[in-house]
Amino acid sequence: MTAGEVGLLEGLATTRAIRRFRPDPVSDEDLAAILFGATRAPSGSNRQPFRFLVLRDGPRAREARALLGEAFRSAWQVKAASDGYSEEEDEGSRRGRTARALRQFVEGFEDVPVVVLACLVRYRAPHPTEGASVYPACQNLLLAARARGLGGVMTMWHAAVEDRLRAVLGIPEGVAIAATLALGHPEGGHGPVRRRPLRELVYEDAWDEPAPWAVDPPGTRFTRG
Amino acid sequence: MTAGEVGLLEGLATTRAIRRFRPDPVSDEDLAAILFGATRAPSGSNRQPFRFLVLRDGPRAREARALLGEAFRSAWQVKAASDGYSEEEDEGSRRGRTARALRQFVEGFEDVPVVVLACLVRYRAPHPTEGASVYPACQNLLLAARARGLGGVMTMWHAAVEDRLRAVLGIPEGVAIAATLALGHPEGGHGPVRRRPLRELVYEDAWDEPAPWAVDPPGTRFTRG
Repeated sequence: MTAGEVGLLEGLATTRAIRRFRPDPVSDEDLAAILFGATRAPSGSNRQPFRFLVLRDGPRAREARALLGEAFRSAWQVKAASDGYSEEEDEGSRRGRTARALRQFVEGFEDVPVVVLACLVRYRAPHPTEGASVYPACQNLLLAARARGLGGVMTMWHAAVEDRLRAVLGIPEGVAIAATLALGHPEGGHGPVRRRPLRELVYEDAWDEPAPWAVDPPGTRFTRG
Repeated sequence: MTAGEVGLLEGLATTRAIRRFRPDPVSDEDLAAILFGATRAPSGSNRQPFRFLVLRDGPRAREARALLGEAFRSAWQVKAASDGYSEEEDEGSRRGRTARALRQFVEGFEDVPVVVLACLVRYRAPHPTEGASVYPACQNLLLAARARGLGGVMTMWHAAVEDRLRAVLGIPEGVAIAATLALGHPEGGHGPVRRRPLRELVYEDAWDEPAPWAVDPPGTRFTRG
């Protein structure tokens, strides 16, 4: 370890969803290190069916990013209405800040420094557990970004334009777009994430049975249950 | 960072699938830290639909572990036959070592120190992307284990006994068993994982287009493509 490097446990606990980015470009060296970290993830029988399609300034990348921006803005409008976010934005609450960050994220989506599509080369029919061979790599990607001083967020908001996206980028049949990841140098910072108390997420011996040892470290802050 | 702690990038690159465990028990402190790391993972809208059901020595845990052992041994027999593993076991090759480790893993499954079922509380119909809200947490679990000097492996081999398992453990409808994780103190060690070269896994601007900057660090060792 070199001084200033982030430790593994600390990295897990402090990798926030980052949606506000500085305009600084992401260097090729950072991208290579982040994709190297991503691809170290496990997958079923080590088949490595994950592929990462990086969208920056290429002609098809720009077209794809415009499509994604459109889809993200629609998805946010639906979510803001259904979750009642829009009225809260000015209240200064945590929820209000989230709403504002989400709105700014989708409005400026075309300016996100790097967009990565995480794809899955299927070897069998679509299945609810197939993500076991691609989402660990997505999580590694976000953690590797954190380690390099960058940050990002994973979303499924590409769904509305998936067919047009596949056509623009030449993604073949049999390959699923598993996630869209936004990546860049964070405007804000990383820091401890908030989750529900461990006792609500961990059971022992049977469903809903408490695990008395499953205690959060002192100082942990929680989301509402 | 304290001396000897594993760095974040190093942890991503050196967390191997661990299937051979020392008989030493896993302490409550280690388990709590590992589950804390797991539950720091992101999930859609931060819903945290992941639940971790820990199976150690409780009465239902023992029954569940016996069922799992049975399922794992069957799954291995099918895999060994279909992948032609059984003939290679004595050859001393890497593939032979993998075959031996897998056979020993399933034969001694009931003695694995800790088994964790990663579950997903569904809020909509089963879907191929639902794993985005549970497999990042599974990957965090394996990384947190690595950070604490332990190790583990994620499998789907519970599938054959899933109904009986759900009955024994009281897992309700609407909750999916997303993965079975084995956990303990490794008999062997962690170390750099082998993957395909980055150029086969990373594209830029369109599907199958090379990303010239996507270069593996010097000394990286690869799997066959």
